[in-house]
Amino acid sequence: MEKALSGIRVLGATRMLAGPYCEMLLADMGAEVLHIELPGRGDESRHFAPLINGEGSCFIASNRNKKSITLDLRTPEGQEIFKDLVRVSDIVVENNRPGTMDKWNVGYKDLKEINPGIIMTSVSGFGQTGPYSQRAGLDIVAQAMGGLMFMTGEADGSPTRTGNAIGDFLGGLFATYGTLSALYYKQRTGKGQHVDAALLDSVIAVLENVIPNYVGLGKVTERMGSRIPGIAPYNTFLAKDGYVVIGVSSNQIWKRFVDVIGRPELNDDPRFNSPSARVENVEEVEKITQEWVSQKTVEEVVSILNEAGVICGPVYSVEQLIEDPHVKARDMAPEIEHPVAGKLRLSGITPKLSLTPGTIDSPPPALGDHNEEIYKGLLKYSDEKFKDLQNRGII
Amino acid sequence: MEKALSGIRVLGATRMLAGPYCEMLLADMGAEVLHIELPGRGDESRHFAPLINGEGSCFIASNRNKKSITLDLRTPEGQEIFKDLVRVSDIVVENNRPGTMDKWNVGYKDLKEINPGIIMTSVSGFGQTGPYSQRAGLDIVAQAMGGLMFMTGEADGSPTRTGNAIGDFLGGLFATYGTLSALYYKQRTGKGQHVDAALLDSVIAVLENVIPNYVGLGKVTERMGSRIPGIAPYNTFLAKDGYVVIGVSSNQIWKRFVDVIGRPELNDDPRFNSPSARVENVEEVEKITQEWVSQKTVEEVVSILNEAGVICGPVYSVEQLIEDPHVKARDMAPEIEHPVAGKLRLSGITPKLSLTPGTIDSPPPALGDHNEEIYKGLLKYSDEKFKDLQNRGII
Repeated sequence: MEKALSGIRVLGATRMLAGPYCEMLLADMGAEVLHIELPGRGDESRHFAPLINGEGSCFIASNRNKKSITLDLRTPEGQEIFKDLVRVSDIVVENNRPGTMDKWNVGYKDLKEINPGIIMTSVSGFGQTGPYSQRAGLDIVAQAMGGLMFMTGEADGSPTRTGNAIGDFLGGLFATYGTLSALYYKQRTGKGQHVDAALLDSVIAVLENVIPNYVGLGKVTERMGSRIPGIAPYNTFLAKDGYVVIGVSSNQIWKRFVDVIGRPELNDDPRFNSPSARVENVEEVEKITQEWVSQKTVEEVVSILNEAGVICGPVYSVEQLIEDPHVKARDMAPEIEHPVAGKLRLSGITPKLSLTPGTIDSPPPALGDHNEEIYKGLLKYSDEKFKDLQNRGII
Repeated sequence: MEKALSGIRVLGATRMLAGPYCEMLLADMGAEVLHIELPGRGDESRHFAPLINGEGSCFIASNRNKKSITLDLRTPEGQEIFKDLVRVSDIVVENNRPGTMDKWNVGYKDLKEINPGIIMTSVSGFGQTGPYSQRAGLDIVAQAMGGLMFMTGEADGSPTRTGNAIGDFLGGLFATYGTLSALYYKQRTGKGQHVDAALLDSVIAVLENVIPNYVGLGKVTERMGSRIPGIAPYNTFLAKDGYVVIGVSSNQIWKRFVDVIGRPELNDDPRFNSPSARVENVEEVEKITQEWVSQKTVEEVVSILNEAGVICGPVYSVEQLIEDPHVKARDMAPEIEHPVAGKLRLSGITPKLSLTPGTIDSPPPALGDHNEEIYKGLLKYSDEKFKDLQNRGII
């Protein structure tokens, strides 16, 4: 079935998370994505614990809907083969150390010669330019230098990384946004370009109003647990059997809240009669909220407050999340059949497109699964050439 | 100068963060974005503390490069005017409660009739479908129900929200990805569609391998501060004058690390001679690391370890971030001149496109700044009609 990006071919010279995730977003919307892996070993995330029946779950999580071909880009012959592929492709995604693709004679300036419309998207820790561009990147470094960790965690605790590799995901998402913008431009002009995405840049891009607040008002955003500066109560609270979050974001909602928790007199209390008053008295506001929540189960809190139009939700672990009826209705934890790892579930596809929905059509591929299809079928290499390249470890 | 999305017109019936952020990403790449606001009050984020010379910094942070027009979509006349705009636009972004645009007779099925190529992107807390679609969303609820908070924070602490509204940003980013995918499809087929983005879906989409780990192996990802399961040391450490993060992701790097901290004998220690051994002895590994870090300044740690090829970085507050030479070289905290708030700095544009870079051409607009340009210039309303609509508060 035709999808939004059907007809687009993407070469993915990527490994691990940020680069593969960008490719996967393109694949989910129908692009043909060739995940290029080293012969023999492949993308190292295949080997990272934990393994599910021998296949790394990191690889499983970020590589559905793709084809796998093996190719050693470090060899001159491998580089020539890559150029053969570029001739018939639209997009290259790569996440090597900046300068590596140039060193391999397949940098943007090389590829542009053979295919002026090629869009090359590079995803790296620090970007293709700037004094730190040669530093290795890790998600924790992007979160730290990007200002996010300073603001995350308890007020009396230390800077905390998010529970997922948000730096990698933001890098992948911004790379995708840049790639698709460049694709639109290419479609109307025929011209490709180099898209330079960086994990550090991507974290800085989601700092909300932190930078203008500092420059304009001298305010430095500090850690405050789950609170936010402008609203109270807005936090995690412990019910009898788990945590909930509650956010009372207006006077209207505060009124409904105090009514439903049986404290209507608080509606007239000057300590709590405006957002700023509640923020000023946040400790008291949270004490009142926590007292009520402690006497209820998560389900009771969520049910009662939702009924009353007070914004709240359960803090889900993965066990609860995948069983939630709304998550199921939204198909956000769909089941797939993986040839090695068996029946699995993955994070689903979002957003939902009405005419050309993204779908999971194939599981993450085995290493080199599509070598014949691509090298013999697409590039028309002879059987002899194919076997020879395999024997010499080029593919 | 021509940009990647030049020629595209976007109507943004959005307020606050997720929707405006999606519009802003399109504006940064050159789309003409009309931010539609209620006459008189405008986007409420203009009024949220903190204010910089009277303008809300939330609004300042998410609305550069846009035009502002006022329009009351709750009125039948306003709805007709909106349809006049849709006729000459490519994309509508909206973040109203699901069903609201339909109630206002400007839902996707209505707009499709007047402009079959229109792409309507809806951003909401829970999506257009599913049992919770009518619930109000807040960032903290998406982070909680999306499984992220359960995994974020200290092991002996409570589930923690990220320091920024990552749910809103992920909603905006996935909305952008879906919009641009639909735009590519429309460009080749003429057909628009409805793009349904949800904050909750977007958080679930970045859970890495959490879902397959649970379903395939029964592993539930718990909070572990800044650690990650597969690598040690990988954490925040306290230097003499601030925090740093260090990630020793391989045996090679461990060898360089123990050499440079003057503990070469640890290279032969079986407790530390593989990633899994180091993870098993993480307390000891961290103690060794912390001992060394405590004796150094942040600058010394970063300098020594980078020199030795050990991945690390300073934990920046916003004050330090905007002064970093690499951040400056990447233009990730650029200065703008705001007519009311004065000289400010914002989060910069990423990724960097080589041929058609995104640029900040205009500051966030004043309320209704572009009413004349759009209503009289673009829609060709007469002076009388324009004045009349203003007088009656429709625009």
